[in-house]
Amino acid sequence: MTATPIDRTRRRFVIDEAIAILARTPSTLDALLRGLPESWTLAHEGGETWSPFDVMGHLIHGEHVDWIPRAKIILTQGDTRAFDRFDRSAHFSASAGRTLPDLLDEFARLREANLRELGSFNLTNSDLDRPGRHPELGAVTLRQLLATWATHDLDHLMQISRVLARQYSDEVGPWRAYLRIISGTQG
Amino acid sequence: MTATPIDRTRRRFVIDEAIAILARTPSTLDALLRGLPESWTLAHEGGETWSPFDVMGHLIHGEHVDWIPRAKIILTQGDTRAFDRFDRSAHFSASAGRTLPDLLDEFARLREANLRELGSFNLTNSDLDRPGRHPELGAVTLRQLLATWATHDLDHLMQISRVLARQYSDEVGPWRAYLRIISGTQG
Repeated sequence: MTATPIDRTRRRFVIDEAIAILARTPSTLDALLRGLPESWTLAHEGGETWSPFDVMGHLIHGEHVDWIPRAKIILTQGDTRAFDRFDRSAHFSASAGRTLPDLLDEFARLREANLRELGSFNLTNSDLDRPGRHPELGAVTLRQLLATWATHDLDHLMQISRVLARQYSDEVGPWRAYLRIISGTQG
Repeated sequence: MTATPIDRTRRRFVIDEAIAILARTPSTLDALLRGLPESWTLAHEGGETWSPFDVMGHLIHGEHVDWIPRAKIILTQGDTRAFDRFDRSAHFSASAGRTLPDLLDEFARLREANLRELGSFNLTNSDLDRPGRHPELGAVTLRQLLATWATHDLDHLMQISRVLARQYSDEVGPWRAYLRIISGTQG
């Protein structure tokens, strides 16, 4: 008999492992962004794309109205009531006139409170199967919502890394060919 | 007369701004990875792709043999001597049997020492124009080397974010459509 090789490309959702990611995001973003010159933190990829400052506002808005509020809808009303739609531009007015350190502080505070609230739900495995209803995507589960919360953090960490790196698209010269973050290839 | 809008998609290389990125990478990776369960830190994207643990080994190898050693070649020998080739698999044996916290500590120590050495060069703008010769890419400058150093950090931060996020490719369910880090689209 040969042992089945471990699949390292996918993992089943385990709430403590998702929380391990969620709990690290504020300090990761703080380490990356606090004190950086504004010319970095207000950089973007052109057009309507977001800067690191914009992303922080979006993450804060999610802590207020998305993840925990939707988890509560699932736990109290199941799929009888669709989630409220998430406004992807609400953060522009909410962040106007604020500083990046202020946004980093607020995000850390909200995330900590939200993870405390998540813990207070004492979720069982069968709770994670509870159904909810997304206004556009339809049937979802609490497990999917929580997996998405952690993945969404990483999506925006990737975005911020890319926005910053692409500022030097011209300055890296011939090395451009080796830098997938600039050439746009993945793998 | 109308003011020229600021281009936020590209920036000219300014050494202190690049150092601001380079100095933050160790603490960013530390905040993201230290203490995470091994099942996260050894996760990869299949085949020969790298885990966060592998990436840390690669970053350490770069601190030893790539960035500062190449800068010194440029400063002392210009383009009369090509850089040594960078071995993209040397880190596998160097990291074998080590722990992730140990790699994070070493990377932080090396980066700090390398930035101290970079500072000791007291580089002028004309130094940044000095030519070097890459064994595959050909003519490069010290400015391009240093811009690439910072960009390379962000490339691997993006990679680690993506490797972690894709672990939940199945678990996010219908939200997959919204998560660019999983769907593979950029923008």
